[in-house]
Amino acid sequence: MALVVIGGVAAGLSAAARARRLDPNLEIIVLEKGAAISYGACGLPYLVEGRVRRAEDLIVYTPEYFRKERRIDVRTGARVVSIAHARREVALESGAKVRYDRLVLGTGARCDTCGMPGVAQPHVFTLHTLDDAERMRRFLTEKRPRRAVVIGAGYIGVEAADALRRHGLRVTVLERSDNALLRDDAALTLAVRRVLEEYGVELRLGIDVKSIEPDRVAGVPCDMVVMAAGFKPNVELAADAGIEIGRTGAIRTTPHMETNLPGVYAAGDCAEVTHLVSGAPTWIPLGTTANKTGRIAGANATGRRERFAGIAGTAIVGIFGTGFATTGFSEPQARALGFSPVAARIEHYSRPRYFDGLKTTVELVADRATRRLLGGSVIGEQDAAGRINVIATALEARMTIDDFEQLDLAYSPPFAPVWDPLLIAAQQLQQAW
Amino acid sequence: MALVVIGGVAAGLSAAARARRLDPNLEIIVLEKGAAISYGACGLPYLVEGRVRRAEDLIVYTPEYFRKERRIDVRTGARVVSIAHARREVALESGAKVRYDRLVLGTGARCDTCGMPGVAQPHVFTLHTLDDAERMRRFLTEKRPRRAVVIGAGYIGVEAADALRRHGLRVTVLERSDNALLRDDAALTLAVRRVLEEYGVELRLGIDVKSIEPDRVAGVPCDMVVMAAGFKPNVELAADAGIEIGRTGAIRTTPHMETNLPGVYAAGDCAEVTHLVSGAPTWIPLGTTANKTGRIAGANATGRRERFAGIAGTAIVGIFGTGFATTGFSEPQARALGFSPVAARIEHYSRPRYFDGLKTTVELVADRATRRLLGGSVIGEQDAAGRINVIATALEARMTIDDFEQLDLAYSPPFAPVWDPLLIAAQQLQQAW
Repeated sequence: MALVVIGGVAAGLSAAARARRLDPNLEIIVLEKGAAISYGACGLPYLVEGRVRRAEDLIVYTPEYFRKERRIDVRTGARVVSIAHARREVALESGAKVRYDRLVLGTGARCDTCGMPGVAQPHVFTLHTLDDAERMRRFLTEKRPRRAVVIGAGYIGVEAADALRRHGLRVTVLERSDNALLRDDAALTLAVRRVLEEYGVELRLGIDVKSIEPDRVAGVPCDMVVMAAGFKPNVELAADAGIEIGRTGAIRTTPHMETNLPGVYAAGDCAEVTHLVSGAPTWIPLGTTANKTGRIAGANATGRRERFAGIAGTAIVGIFGTGFATTGFSEPQARALGFSPVAARIEHYSRPRYFDGLKTTVELVADRATRRLLGGSVIGEQDAAGRINVIATALEARMTIDDFEQLDLAYSPPFAPVWDPLLIAAQQLQQAW
Repeated sequence: MALVVIGGVAAGLSAAARARRLDPNLEIIVLEKGAAISYGACGLPYLVEGRVRRAEDLIVYTPEYFRKERRIDVRTGARVVSIAHARREVALESGAKVRYDRLVLGTGARCDTCGMPGVAQPHVFTLHTLDDAERMRRFLTEKRPRRAVVIGAGYIGVEAADALRRHGLRVTVLERSDNALLRDDAALTLAVRRVLEEYGVELRLGIDVKSIEPDRVAGVPCDMVVMAAGFKPNVELAADAGIEIGRTGAIRTTPHMETNLPGVYAAGDCAEVTHLVSGAPTWIPLGTTANKTGRIAGANATGRRERFAGIAGTAIVGIFGTGFATTGFSEPQARALGFSPVAARIEHYSRPRYFDGLKTTVELVADRATRRLLGGSVIGEQDAAGRINVIATALEARMTIDDFEQLDLAYSPPFAPVWDPLLIAAQQLQQAW
């Protein structure tokens, strides 16, 4: 039995490692088109910033480690150009063919910039691979750019803006939609804008960039451009092989992370998963989901039948020290999905003031008919991750606002106020009926 | 209609305030035996330490505030000596009588030290009221004690030890049981011991103190003693009035926080509540529960029918900067309750090392038969509150370990590793079957 995994980052390596743990005899081959595997892609902005000193610090495992310690045949520079499922065979760019019994697609996603005039200029960057980050770092030290434009106000865009600002550049973020962080949420976007502006970064919304001129983008002068928009799943290889693509544009999967082709699995940024709140397929490419779905694809490729329940869509990003955390749906998102949402937003101290407590903002969204929680956000310099995780857990448990309002959360002065901001938000939301 | 509330701290004032909000016309009288109301009792160790500068800083509201702003008649120095329910009347120490239609008991708890020889000496303290803390503070500055014994290794005991150590005293904590923090959990106790010893505080277990000598306790020389053991609910008033006391020793309540006497409610540290994991009545006196049950008692006293689901038993304490957080049951506790528990304990970084991540310990306990989570603990200098709250939320939702292992927790390098320690613990626990 041979398992072939296409992609050697989060999803692919999680699949390979899990398969090995469950089946010591399986032949496992990982085909990675790039030069490096197993890097913490979410750390790339911090490599640019300089907090992560060397690219090596983001590499968790080397191909040698996998070969020797796990007996997994990891091949770098191995770009798969086609899948012939009838023959259970993939073809590499080099012309070589690799046979499989089970196949896991962990082809990831990319910043789809192909079409835009000007993207090939040397001062234009993406931030998707270790190479991207290292090239950007070299450019910063060698060319000493003074003004940057970041295209896209999603997670990578704002993290890149933060990193470049810390290098002393003037930074303007251009976003096509009316929202930051890919969430239809005016208050969240306003909070992002305030923090960015406080640190001297300009945010312009509703700017649809059509081309990158040598010295400006959409009229904003700059000598450096970061493309952090147009993120798309890499599905071409799959589609060409007859694998179904879902309405989100990512590979359609069963709860077992299997595609429509039996024995062929997809995981990570190239795959759809179920959204636990809406029940519908969704595509929210994040490292945590990549690892989880990879593990499940790898397990099922060895004959198990593990299910992935789905995601709540939890995410967090730090912008100049403030955490912006979201899960589930915002009020407008919930409404667009057919819910009848009610929402409450409160601001409260995260901890007692004598323990240097700072203000934090919590929003909760619930469904008017069922009282079920639909989503929430937490914004603040303290404890944002812990609090959004409580909301995420409540979403996954399908809690109502009334269950949530009685949560037995930890209290002691060094850690939280006696009424946690989460509970104050819940009480506030209960007034909405 | 008159609502009388006995007790003017967390539960009593929550009840009074909520009742006023729901019924603008109700006559509301709060009878508090002490001189102050509405203080943050959990802040007392920090008043001793000095982080909280003045006693006033712990007072949230004054009697004047309640009288003027809420039209609640708060009477301090008003000690109730009996309840005559047949006449719907309470009698004060002063001889005065106060009539009620609805009664809320928020009589709290105390450190039951009456019987022990030597407790009346001026160098012996409890840490239960503002007066206690101020007296201790004066003693520290005026008498400059050099060695303290703390009796009891529960929350207040270890917080007092921390505060006194920061004042430069040699501190020994004597605990009757084999465990710190009131939890049958050897690993937790060991972790508490390690932190205490690292900061020069000695912990001696299995020491049943029978008397306090002028210069020593159980053979340990000292010039100052803190009594932080023998915590008991104040139920005598209730019991004398024919109110049922439960097996925990606290006042028995319905889910509406009503006692066996119709129209008489109990809330806070004097009352039993349901433990959500065991389903049995429990007595875990904490400020959060006091506020929640007070609100519900107050609401129901105005004619509502709100239910208190119960508690998970979540608690956290900071000892020299490390958070010790627990919820639900430890493995031995779960076994004693008739479950067949399995447990896993892991140590992992709380955040990436390049974001100054420190190690954190997570333990999860689940039931072998049902795979339901039964409890957990989190120990560490970072993010302990946020993580224990996720476990608490999962307990309240009756999640299985398999639900928990798939939780969609927030990830981004400044906040957490891609595999949160909670999920690593869950994966580890899944291996136990």
